[in-house]
Amino acid sequence: MLMSRKILKNAIVLTMNSNHELLENTDIFIENGIISEISPAINHKNCEEIDCSEFILMPGFINTHTHVAMSYMKGLADDLDLHTWLTRHIWPAEQKMLDFDFVYDASVHGICEMIKNGITCFNDMYFFENATAKACEKIGMRAVLGEGVIDFPAGLHDGSDSALNFIRELHRKYRNNRLINIAVAPHAVYTASKETWIKALNLAKELDLLLHFHLSETEKENKDFFDKNKMSPTEMLQETGVLNHKSVAAHAIHLSENDIEILAESRTSIAVCTKSNLKLISGFAPISSYEKAQINWSIATDGVSSNNNLDLAEEASLTAKLHKCLNKDPEFLNAEKMLRQCTIRAAEALGLEKETGSIEVGKAADIIFIDLNDIATQPIYDYYSQILYAMNSRQIRYVMINGKFVLKNRKLTIADEDQILAKARIYKSKILKITTE
Amino acid sequence: MLMSRKILKNAIVLTMNSNHELLENTDIFIENGIISEISPAINHKNCEEIDCSEFILMPGFINTHTHVAMSYMKGLADDLDLHTWLTRHIWPAEQKMLDFDFVYDASVHGICEMIKNGITCFNDMYFFENATAKACEKIGMRAVLGEGVIDFPAGLHDGSDSALNFIRELHRKYRNNRLINIAVAPHAVYTASKETWIKALNLAKELDLLLHFHLSETEKENKDFFDKNKMSPTEMLQETGVLNHKSVAAHAIHLSENDIEILAESRTSIAVCTKSNLKLISGFAPISSYEKAQINWSIATDGVSSNNNLDLAEEASLTAKLHKCLNKDPEFLNAEKMLRQCTIRAAEALGLEKETGSIEVGKAADIIFIDLNDIATQPIYDYYSQILYAMNSRQIRYVMINGKFVLKNRKLTIADEDQILAKARIYKSKILKITTE
Repeated sequence: MLMSRKILKNAIVLTMNSNHELLENTDIFIENGIISEISPAINHKNCEEIDCSEFILMPGFINTHTHVAMSYMKGLADDLDLHTWLTRHIWPAEQKMLDFDFVYDASVHGICEMIKNGITCFNDMYFFENATAKACEKIGMRAVLGEGVIDFPAGLHDGSDSALNFIRELHRKYRNNRLINIAVAPHAVYTASKETWIKALNLAKELDLLLHFHLSETEKENKDFFDKNKMSPTEMLQETGVLNHKSVAAHAIHLSENDIEILAESRTSIAVCTKSNLKLISGFAPISSYEKAQINWSIATDGVSSNNNLDLAEEASLTAKLHKCLNKDPEFLNAEKMLRQCTIRAAEALGLEKETGSIEVGKAADIIFIDLNDIATQPIYDYYSQILYAMNSRQIRYVMINGKFVLKNRKLTIADEDQILAKARIYKSKILKITTE
Repeated sequence: MLMSRKILKNAIVLTMNSNHELLENTDIFIENGIISEISPAINHKNCEEIDCSEFILMPGFINTHTHVAMSYMKGLADDLDLHTWLTRHIWPAEQKMLDFDFVYDASVHGICEMIKNGITCFNDMYFFENATAKACEKIGMRAVLGEGVIDFPAGLHDGSDSALNFIRELHRKYRNNRLINIAVAPHAVYTASKETWIKALNLAKELDLLLHFHLSETEKENKDFFDKNKMSPTEMLQETGVLNHKSVAAHAIHLSENDIEILAESRTSIAVCTKSNLKLISGFAPISSYEKAQINWSIATDGVSSNNNLDLAEEASLTAKLHKCLNKDPEFLNAEKMLRQCTIRAAEALGLEKETGSIEVGKAADIIFIDLNDIATQPIYDYYSQILYAMNSRQIRYVMINGKFVLKNRKLTIADEDQILAKARIYKSKILKITTE
């Protein structure tokens, strides 16, 4: 295969490396998708040279918790309580619609929305992750794909054993894939028994896979669990040994002091889903407690149908401002820190910190090209601040994953946007027919 | 002068009229900037016909509290406490920079940012409002311009009397202008004495102008005022009669039950500035109390330097989600209601409800053309929901104010964007020189 060699010339680079370096007038040399040199004035023969003097380059955003194939359900039912939303709208639609084709098409839609918002990697939990994997392969998206494990029939599976076998197969298929990683995703303590959690843990240990689950999203689920088990969900997950394995817990809002200690000691990462938590009135993630306990946390969109977009930069901006106010501290979560939570800290959460999350030699070229030459973001006093607080995600003009452009001047390079929109309309008609029957 | 006649053809129209009508396949006939007919299949001779079958039309957003000429100070200093931000950065910059040219150029910048976010009218408070008026005239923006009235020297004025005389002059100049309205803007209870408030009220009464002021933005200003005066700011404003006059109070966060009653009885409108309040840790506006008391409230950006953008749709989306969560009620502030707060309710706040705020016969054609044919907003189950929760403001493709296009396919029709950006860079250098001296 022909070696792909690119030099990004004359860029301003927010590296997100451990020295917090911001480089100006810098070139980046990329060979076969991997960054092999970063310095001023790089010259090599037989390279594609790309002038980046108009752009700020930074690592792509990493979305650490989503259900990407819910794209067609966004806006299906808003401004409702969680129970009505799930039981009358989302679950009936899912029960009748979910199959390989639906998940594939909806995943393409969601992946393309993410790319257009500068997201270059996502951590998914849903069903038919084989279809989402195919969508990632087609588009060239990096992902960690966690097939949901629950105790009742869902998607392809009649129960948790079938889901676990499916994950084993998926892992076999993708274990040497540079873009696709497989995870084990026991859904939550209220949908998977202790026995199922232990099986999921054992599979994750055996294959060295990430565990990805929901944790303490609502007060009610916590209370129900405590009434039955006389311990918190976090305490149960500690007891079973789950938390000693590499894990991402989504939400993690309603935590006791003991829960916080457990999550810190076990080095569990938390995916904070601010907009979804506000919209579904789940509450405010205790980020200042995470910080005090040195828990690694990152930013996530959750599924688009409870958000209702996949815009991680907006999510991060809102999270910073909200938690300044909640903590009565305007210096809390400054702009540079927040951009690190969306990039390198998120890569660490997924165990991908050697591959992505910063612009450094040896890592994959997962890079976004931001155009700050815009009324919304001029003048510039501080790049981090302007990106976090003033930028609109549509100022992300080019997106590169593993050295390949997936977005060029706001156009998707592989997917056909008109076709994606046409499919969305067809599925909408089907969903409406089902949910209004 | 030649009569301007336009027909907008085949549109979906969110009217925001009192019947909450959503019209499909509708034409809108506009004569000299005024909507003169709304019905299917309008035909008239000598008209420009504009096909709108790709767009959702709704009234432009109305921003009920901003300081538009702060554009060049956005991002100058973020993640700081209010005192440091104001005393070390904003005030020194303002003291040395403010003059007619600075305010004119910065206003053009801010007005253009607002237009690109679908804002067709704004309620301003700053100094050199004559310069902001000139900027509005140039661009074709609708505004209510309130020269700040304070007891110490600022802008052109050595004190409040000079400011009040200036407002009288501004009013004389613009009283017959279709786009520009003048207001009296006593800054706050901590910057204007009771005597000054009464003078401001008398001028507003005499000329029938809106009063526009800051109210109870921070706990500290309330406490300081109470310690000195043994009453709340709201109680003082009631006592002086200010609140019996048509008023917009910005922020209004820290209110007692009695304050809420006073504001309700006096029919004072409140401008809610969610993002600024979060970022400067001012607190959460008690919107559910406003609602219970039937206080009219609307959405505002505040100055861009504490936001840091002028995106009212994003502001409204965040406000809805945040207050659902604060009130533990996912049905609170539904999508249609929120879009009404940004349009017709905002027009009512400014006393402009006969001129703008909805798409109705007899009103000015202040209309935005939204392109929902986008991965972010397809499929569509509900227009209101998609606009509030999923739309990016850059999907607003055309903006019309008083029947004239000020934005066409995302390009400003009058201002030169490159020139605006070049000016921003020049002013930035000057500001940096001053604030780092």
